[in-house]
Amino acid sequence: MYEGVVQDLIDELGRLPGVGPKSAQRIAFHLLAAEPADVRRLVTALTEVKDKVRFCAVCGNVSEDELCRICRDARRDPTVLCVVEEPKDVVAIEKTREFRGRYHVLGGAISPIDGVGPDDLRTRELMTRLADGVVTEVIIATDPNLEGEATATYLARLLRPMGLRVTRIASGLPVGGDLEYADEITLGRAFEGRRLLDV
Amino acid sequence: MYEGVVQDLIDELGRLPGVGPKSAQRIAFHLLAAEPADVRRLVTALTEVKDKVRFCAVCGNVSEDELCRICRDARRDPTVLCVVEEPKDVVAIEKTREFRGRYHVLGGAISPIDGVGPDDLRTRELMTRLADGVVTEVIIATDPNLEGEATATYLARLLRPMGLRVTRIASGLPVGGDLEYADEITLGRAFEGRRLLDV
Repeated sequence: MYEGVVQDLIDELGRLPGVGPKSAQRIAFHLLAAEPADVRRLVTALTEVKDKVRFCAVCGNVSEDELCRICRDARRDPTVLCVVEEPKDVVAIEKTREFRGRYHVLGGAISPIDGVGPDDLRTRELMTRLADGVVTEVIIATDPNLEGEATATYLARLLRPMGLRVTRIASGLPVGGDLEYADEITLGRAFEGRRLLDV
Repeated sequence: MYEGVVQDLIDELGRLPGVGPKSAQRIAFHLLAAEPADVRRLVTALTEVKDKVRFCAVCGNVSEDELCRICRDARRDPTVLCVVEEPKDVVAIEKTREFRGRYHVLGGAISPIDGVGPDDLRTRELMTRLADGVVTEVIIATDPNLEGEATATYLARLLRPMGLRVTRIASGLPVGGDLEYADEITLGRAFEGRRLLDV
């Protein structure tokens, strides 16, 4: 409906998650009327994210350096490792201030329907990290949904024979929900109430 | 909560209309995981819109040329002029295929609370366009809200003395809607604007 580049922008914005055609149009016109400097800041942020952000060589979290902020922090307890699906889950847990250990980001969850198996996740890297025996407890904080539970069960079976304490965050979280949308108190409680996985 | 550039991107996305902090985070992580080529397309679309898009010298619609597509189209009826607030209103009306005249985009509506008066809109340009006497009817299609109605009344008072036919698009119940869910003002307008059924 629009001329060339305006329509291009609406199309590109409409591809973003949660942005429908009406929102895309609204954002496009907002940007058309915005100060060029504001749009330049957005363009810079987009470009820099793709140029500078990589994944932490140890935990798989997003990072601008070889190691992420948490892996660089010597005050974090190296004996407790929290396994999550995505970098945004690290942020959600950090906000609770309940956890002072380290993280391992899997990069997803086991989902046969999407063709994601254990080998598509950072499970091998997890095993390598655990080899030196420093970690004594692994807290599995995958999402409390089908894929997250399947991943938790898989990991528990894999890690138990290594003599590790394997725990799962409590289902104080609404089942079927998304970890990143939990409020901080609920998520904190879930950490407090973690229990041994008996498989 | 995030490191440097990721947080920068979340902040910039969060400034867009209708994008809250959670959506901004979701979009940022989507872009982090996206193909670099996809992000480049978005960046190009953003840059091009600011570089190439300007406003039509005649009607004020968005355009990549001196004149917009509609003002360039010789088949459009030059005697009927439809006055709207924003370029997106032009698109909404074009979709109906009901109107074959030309447009005039005001660039907003009179709103004392936002400090927008008639001189902040393209009213002078409208008067200049009407001076040659080609236009015989002006359809005022500003939004049916407080600001749009104020603008319509202002324009009607300004244009009536010029001997023009000044009309206002009808307010009433949306087609396909339910009478019982209509608000009182809309329903009142629907009664006011009733017309003879010729069957």
